[in-house]
Amino acid sequence: MIEPKAISGFVENLPEQQLIEEKFKEIIRKNYALCGFTPLDTPIIERVEALTAKGADDNEIYGIHRLKGEREDNTELGLRFDLTVPLARYVAKNEGILAFPFKRQHVARVYRWERPQKGRYREFYQADVDIIGNGKLPLFADVEILTTIYNSLKELNFGGFVINMNNKKLLQGFLESCNISKIAETIAVIDKKDKVKTIAPMLEELELSSEQIQKILEYIKISEEKNNSEILEIFAENKNELLQEGLTELSYVFQNLVKLGVSEDSLKINPAISRGLNYYTGTVFETFIAGAESMGSISSGGRYENLCGNFTKNPYPGVGGSIGLSRLIAVLQQLENEAILPWAKTTSEILVLNMDEELLADCLEIVKTLRTAGIPTEIYLDSSAKMKKQMKYADNKNIKKVLIFGGNEKENGTVMLKNLEGGAQKEISLENLVSEINS
Amino acid sequence: MIEPKAISGFVENLPEQQLIEEKFKEIIRKNYALCGFTPLDTPIIERVEALTAKGADDNEIYGIHRLKGEREDNTELGLRFDLTVPLARYVAKNEGILAFPFKRQHVARVYRWERPQKGRYREFYQADVDIIGNGKLPLFADVEILTTIYNSLKELNFGGFVINMNNKKLLQGFLESCNISKIAETIAVIDKKDKVKTIAPMLEELELSSEQIQKILEYIKISEEKNNSEILEIFAENKNELLQEGLTELSYVFQNLVKLGVSEDSLKINPAISRGLNYYTGTVFETFIAGAESMGSISSGGRYENLCGNFTKNPYPGVGGSIGLSRLIAVLQQLENEAILPWAKTTSEILVLNMDEELLADCLEIVKTLRTAGIPTEIYLDSSAKMKKQMKYADNKNIKKVLIFGGNEKENGTVMLKNLEGGAQKEISLENLVSEINS
Repeated sequence: MIEPKAISGFVENLPEQQLIEEKFKEIIRKNYALCGFTPLDTPIIERVEALTAKGADDNEIYGIHRLKGEREDNTELGLRFDLTVPLARYVAKNEGILAFPFKRQHVARVYRWERPQKGRYREFYQADVDIIGNGKLPLFADVEILTTIYNSLKELNFGGFVINMNNKKLLQGFLESCNISKIAETIAVIDKKDKVKTIAPMLEELELSSEQIQKILEYIKISEEKNNSEILEIFAENKNELLQEGLTELSYVFQNLVKLGVSEDSLKINPAISRGLNYYTGTVFETFIAGAESMGSISSGGRYENLCGNFTKNPYPGVGGSIGLSRLIAVLQQLENEAILPWAKTTSEILVLNMDEELLADCLEIVKTLRTAGIPTEIYLDSSAKMKKQMKYADNKNIKKVLIFGGNEKENGTVMLKNLEGGAQKEISLENLVSEINS
Repeated sequence: MIEPKAISGFVENLPEQQLIEEKFKEIIRKNYALCGFTPLDTPIIERVEALTAKGADDNEIYGIHRLKGEREDNTELGLRFDLTVPLARYVAKNEGILAFPFKRQHVARVYRWERPQKGRYREFYQADVDIIGNGKLPLFADVEILTTIYNSLKELNFGGFVINMNNKKLLQGFLESCNISKIAETIAVIDKKDKVKTIAPMLEELELSSEQIQKILEYIKISEEKNNSEILEIFAENKNELLQEGLTELSYVFQNLVKLGVSEDSLKINPAISRGLNYYTGTVFETFIAGAESMGSISSGGRYENLCGNFTKNPYPGVGGSIGLSRLIAVLQQLENEAILPWAKTTSEILVLNMDEELLADCLEIVKTLRTAGIPTEIYLDSSAKMKKQMKYADNKNIKKVLIFGGNEKENGTVMLKNLEGGAQKEISLENLVSEINS
């Protein structure tokens, strides 16, 4: 006998949790498609040389081998750790075929060898959207990515969230205007601001002057003290060109988002957002659940200059965003978010009781009618089971409505509809079955 | 520079092919849910001891290892090769929690190390439904599985298909009634009937008498020569109890399927179907595309007596069916099936042209209105691009309708709708935008 236990770091949902995850996936995919992002579904396995081309930490990668028997060649294979490397390879492979700008969505699992801990899984879902340009890509693409992410999070309906947005050029230009030479190192320190009480000691280690440090400490607090329009004006006097370019881009993206219906309450211009070192070059964003900021970002992304540099000499700039689907659900469950709980119900609306083998044909007619009308319907499988047991099944599976068809109903051409919430019952005509159920 | 090539045996779709696959997945999942099957999504990784518990060929299994660095324990892990082993482990793990009969659907990828060849992939999709009983499971469950598979294939709308159904008890009872003692070996031979010209020599090797061989050769041809009702009556005189039990079950399942709306044209009682040796014990079925029978079964399944025998001492009988999703699509593409081609289109219905940065705000209002109404809409990203280039993008992405908003339209409160099929254009009022697009 083998113990049917789970594998450390790999989560497995109970049916009611799975229904929440499915609903999340469905809403995100629908919103991504609504904004014109075509689904992709690359293999979960990639060649290791592709996975590690950008210098990924290969301690985190799962390798693949044939368990027994000979392999046909020596190509080293592994599981993808994100959806961006496969996209880069895919775009380079199909660069002569794809229509650019190429807009794709990919909602799928990725794999990372990490020490398992709360909210950190080894297998988890990400939901990515990216727009890839051939040679160049207009700034409006950044607006589309952020709108798409916003629309999706909004329809998930879990409550307030704030997209913190910035432009890397603003941050870099600001540091230049402070005469700081170690730009990359300073950004790396700023990136740690939420992980420590103060970054001052780390800035001192970079041998910045106390005046420079003071300016940086003020800068990273701007978003707490000023509103969006104030922030967009606060740098008006700064003569640094890169900063002004970043400011213009940031302002353009922000204003167009508002025109596309993104609520200003959900947008926070935050000049301290950097998203790490080198990858992102323009727009960057991170998203936090209102009241649960300490639980980290649930969606992030930005503009990058060259997606496929390891695979082709042609330049493919892009902009992308990702919703950390597994992470988001884990956080909401931890917060006991009430908005998502109604999704944790059975897939069926109706249970047709099966009380009499003689009347089965009539019951099947009812089942057929309901399913044809698109109403998820089950029939109890065993006609010899007592009514109490059949009702208990509906209750266990959270099915709210039960249909009972007996001798009286057959005579009257009706069926009894019993609502398990409240217990009210109503005899309805078979002719009006679908409209009564839907009402 | 790394070559962005594919891995042998792993398919990767272009966007238009992917849209077909997504549509298949969507239709199957919807139909499975309509019949009350809750989605599950177990990890793709299982412990090797669980994967091989039933004596699976471990030459076909992919193992998993951490690429670099130390592992925390010595549990051997591998990729699942089907969705049934994970289901068995899952049911045993959660036997105290699940509501029985447990109905689950699982549409997901599985992995098999095989020599890559046409239509045989190393990573492919299966779409499974199963009903698992606790201790016992009524025969009506078999009806529900077959209805669910039928409804799904029907809505996929690729044309004719025939579900060949049988009951293992009928086959076994028939062999008993011929006084054959080597039942299992004989069934193994019958199972090979479509792979060779005649199974007579193999039956001779089992030392069956020429009379026995003659009876078997007639038996396996019954379905070609008789219709369903004739077959259900042909065994009336046979006194074998197991045969009669199988016949009663087969007849019950067949008749209830018809009552649930399954077309008799799509059902063929075929007493020669065996689905291999030991696993299935009652109902069995295989499904063929009409006119493409030689390309093999695209959906199969049946009744099994004990799902979780390797994981728990409690008996869990079940019945299940699987649509070979990747296989089905490969066959239809090979047949150049025209019915599925319309699905190979972009996700977007509308492209809003972006001709003038001054009018962008108005265009965004249009985009917002359409998306809010659930109409997949893109806006061309670059306002400096010529109209011809923007039209070309719509054409490349197979977007059929284009909206043009210029100075005249702004004055009139209208927008120009151009249909790229045919080229007709029409000025429509902004107020009626959604209803005009949907009409």
